[in-house]
Amino acid sequence: MKSTKTSYFPAWREKIYQIIFKANTKSGKTFDIILLFSIILSVIAVLLDSVELIRIKYGNALFFTEWFFTILFTIEYFFRIISVKKRSKYIFSFFGMIDLLAVLPSYLSLLFIGTQYFLVIRILRLLRVFRILKLDRYVGASRYLKSSLKASRPKIIVFFGVLFTIVVIMGSLMYLIEGPENGFTNIPKSIYWAIVTLTTVGYGDVTPNTVLGQTLSSIIMILGYTIIAVPTGIISVEMSRAKEKSKKPFVCKNCNNSDNDKDAKFCKICGEKI
Amino acid sequence: MKSTKTSYFPAWREKIYQIIFKANTKSGKTFDIILLFSIILSVIAVLLDSVELIRIKYGNALFFTEWFFTILFTIEYFFRIISVKKRSKYIFSFFGMIDLLAVLPSYLSLLFIGTQYFLVIRILRLLRVFRILKLDRYVGASRYLKSSLKASRPKIIVFFGVLFTIVVIMGSLMYLIEGPENGFTNIPKSIYWAIVTLTTVGYGDVTPNTVLGQTLSSIIMILGYTIIAVPTGIISVEMSRAKEKSKKPFVCKNCNNSDNDKDAKFCKICGEKI
Amino acid sequence: MKSTKTSYFPAWREKIYQIIFKANTKSGKTFDIILLFSIILSVIAVLLDSVELIRIKYGNALFFTEWFFTILFTIEYFFRIISVKKRSKYIFSFFGMIDLLAVLPSYLSLLFIGTQYFLVIRILRLLRVFRILKLDRYVGASRYLKSSLKASRPKIIVFFGVLFTIVVIMGSLMYLIEGPENGFTNIPKSIYWAIVTLTTVGYGDVTPNTVLGQTLSSIIMILGYTIIAVPTGIISVEMSRAKEKSKKPFVCKNCNNSDNDKDAKFCKICGEKI
Amino acid sequence: MKSTKTSYFPAWREKIYQIIFKANTKSGKTFDIILLFSIILSVIAVLLDSVELIRIKYGNALFFTEWFFTILFTIEYFFRIISVKKRSKYIFSFFGMIDLLAVLPSYLSLLFIGTQYFLVIRILRLLRVFRILKLDRYVGASRYLKSSLKASRPKIIVFFGVLFTIVVIMGSLMYLIEGPENGFTNIPKSIYWAIVTLTTVGYGDVTPNTVLGQTLSSIIMILGYTIIAVPTGIISVEMSRAKEKSKKPFVCKNCNNSDNDKDAKFCKICGEKI
Repeated sequence: MKSTKTSYFPAWREKIYQIIFKANTKSGKTFDIILLFSIILSVIAVLLDSVELIRIKYGNALFFTEWFFTILFTIEYFFRIISVKKRSKYIFSFFGMIDLLAVLPSYLSLLFIGTQYFLVIRILRLLRVFRILKLDRYVGASRYLKSSLKASRPKIIVFFGVLFTIVVIMGSLMYLIEGPENGFTNIPKSIYWAIVTLTTVGYGDVTPNTVLGQTLSSIIMILGYTIIAVPTGIISVEMSRAKEKSKKPFVCKNCNNSDNDKDAKFCKICGEKI
Repeated sequence: MKSTKTSYFPAWREKIYQIIFKANTKSGKTFDIILLFSIILSVIAVLLDSVELIRIKYGNALFFTEWFFTILFTIEYFFRIISVKKRSKYIFSFFGMIDLLAVLPSYLSLLFIGTQYFLVIRILRLLRVFRILKLDRYVGASRYLKSSLKASRPKIIVFFGVLFTIVVIMGSLMYLIEGPENGFTNIPKSIYWAIVTLTTVGYGDVTPNTVLGQTLSSIIMILGYTIIAVPTGIISVEMSRAKEKSKKPFVCKNCNNSDNDKDAKFCKICGEKI
Repeated sequence: MKSTKTSYFPAWREKIYQIIFKANTKSGKTFDIILLFSIILSVIAVLLDSVELIRIKYGNALFFTEWFFTILFTIEYFFRIISVKKRSKYIFSFFGMIDLLAVLPSYLSLLFIGTQYFLVIRILRLLRVFRILKLDRYVGASRYLKSSLKASRPKIIVFFGVLFTIVVIMGSLMYLIEGPENGFTNIPKSIYWAIVTLTTVGYGDVTPNTVLGQTLSSIIMILGYTIIAVPTGIISVEMSRAKEKSKKPFVCKNCNNSDNDKDAKFCKICGEKI
Repeated sequence: MKSTKTSYFPAWREKIYQIIFKANTKSGKTFDIILLFSIILSVIAVLLDSVELIRIKYGNALFFTEWFFTILFTIEYFFRIISVKKRSKYIFSFFGMIDLLAVLPSYLSLLFIGTQYFLVIRILRLLRVFRILKLDRYVGASRYLKSSLKASRPKIIVFFGVLFTIVVIMGSLMYLIEGPENGFTNIPKSIYWAIVTLTTVGYGDVTPNTVLGQTLSSIIMILGYTIIAVPTGIISVEMSRAKEKSKKPFVCKNCNNSDNDKDAKFCKICGEKI
């Protein structure tokens, strides 16, 4: 805080910044917990508002709740803008956008009917709370998951490419075999059916009726049942590698054995102290 | 048995304790096997009692069976309380609660109709029998499963968090796209549909009818089909680690470190030669 | 063949034995291939016979085919009995039983209507052919699969025990929540529904209609979606262990390094010739 | 280009060859990107053409689009034939066949109605583009997936054999239990149902109605739910092995054995010190 630049930044804004953006002070933690419950309550209110019977009976209370949280989150949003140092960076960041989108639908609902349901986007704000509360173990876990998924991206994309090709060709074939009279009204719908079948979801809203169609769908099912092993294998291997990596960083200077455990104090091959 | 305290504990109670709670005597083992069959028979009786045709025909026999086992288990429950040393600890333990809940519904059914079906909770008593019969291999297996699941808990919770966020947002989107006229009567029901789809269950009681809805559900299906790889990967890795750990057989004589690798020549903690 | 015992065994029976039971002579191989196609054709005939339209049109041809193969397999069965050395051992062996069951239903169909469909059991005879043809790679693969599954048996049984407990309790709960008016007519049917849901099959013949029922089924679905990771993890780990075992049998006599590869000729640690 | 043989091959054909078959020149890359978009657009046109409402409204535009791309791809196909050195080898290669099949249905549709939908086979041409664009990371990923799948082929085939046997026997049993009056009209349809159930697809178009049938299907479901672990385990292990192999970096200078472990000090084939 020696630089002249920060002298323009008053102490009360710094304090608000600490409360809103950080969680290492007591008031910051309290703020985050209040925020957590506000988000959950406001999302539940949106969900309940969509149930007709509840809306008829408790419409007013829900309307009040919605606007209460909208105003609360709006005030919070302005305080975030005021207290942050690099405004434009915050506004266009992922969480900045979410913070704005979490209040916008309420105001838009004054102009357009139905937009208030977009408020469920508020649930994404939970991610911020998780991040801030520094649930270290969970952050570690999610970073681990993320890095595993990232490392397996090229393989997953190739897998999706193959999947995509299969459903387009299988869907088209089924359209030719079953035809509109059996519910396969057009190729896009047949592709939708192929996805429903390959992923083993199996709604049953469209089902094959001809013997040939049932034979082909049997093949698709067994294909879907088996190739699910591929992404599972990919991610298992990447996770096991990520685990191993995080476990073994100590190379012995004496014998160059790079296979020592993380908690090792002596090289397991030559006994040299690490 | 030298202490004065145990002198207050009569021999017959000690004997009952050995029979009921342990399985290393012959009479203890016999007791457990009788208990095992009693539990299974009483649960089958409850299941059959719920089938109308059987109830009409054999209602009296089932009623008798139910009360026979209820009285049997009640007597057993009192013997457990009498014979155990620390009563309150037993009563409020997991198995103590189950033992009580296994007889309570019968008595409550005298006051309220229908409560007798809660008797299926008796099936949880099987866990006690398994535990007591000391099926070592199975206990080892279940301990292994439990420790693997415990180690992967933070990752599984992060995974569920992401899953939860996906179904809330996807469910709300589908409500806006399909609307009540296509069966998506409200957001909670749409979320229910999203769970049915993401988990690849696919009942087909609610299905998308619009092109946009079918496109979005295709995305949810493929998402569900692929991200099932994540918990599988997590648990595979944890299990493989648990296995590896249980495999490491080299304990250091100097510092008792039991975590040395199979190919280690020196203890990784104290540098002692193995 | 020096013993006096085998002198009672004529050469022609030995030859039949070689042809029928072994596959290392040319005639033995020819026999197996004819058997392979006979089995497949006879099973296809049974399948087609069950299709009404085909039965009406080609009933006579199928009837002839069925009896043709039945008589063929009966003759083969008697030749097996004649040529084998230890008759009772063969008759009561797994394959001996299958060989008998593969012809019995035809004869029984003369007495009872409909039994001829049991002839599909003939498909199990394919296993014999596979075994005999000495498809080494496939036999190795199936032995590998079998040993992996065997090693993971205790864990799989514990897993099934937990699964069984979950579906009984969940099914009973759903019966109480949804009741007969929503299709959950009795607890066994509710348990059937719970299995349909937990395994993510999701027929949709019985579906929850109440909000509480849909919430509970959401929990069952997510449970089923996640715990499928457990058997997968178990079998992956056992397979990876089986693989490792088959890979590393060579211990170095010089330095006791047990980590040499199967194809190694020199110890990788000390350079000693293996 | 010193050999006399190539002197018969004019420069303009060499240049076309470079543009069409390779992607290392600027014009070659441009050609591939145009091809990529042409394929995607032409496939989308086919898909849209199958939707009745769109065909009625935009039928002419789609008809024009289809023929535009057909002529374009026909010209391309002839240029490929002209520019390639070994013509017959190209024509009967996998990609040569696909190139032909990508235009043939249009010409056949002049003679037979409906054949134009076979044009979706054009989507397979995307594979060529991927190959040519030298998306190295993706090619590496797909080669890795391919080699993993190839190594696990014998095991997967044994698995399919067992699966096939299960569905035939289970399907036949269900036909005998449920019978035509419950929708199981013949054994092939029952086998179809068994596949739908075992793969956990669960359309619900055919469902068991008898208690015995529901019990048997519960067994099939749990079987299907559990044995999916087998291919997953197989592929996970193979992938992890493929990964490990690609990791081993130590090549022996003496015998060029590239299969030495990371921690090896002596070559396992010739005993040379590394």
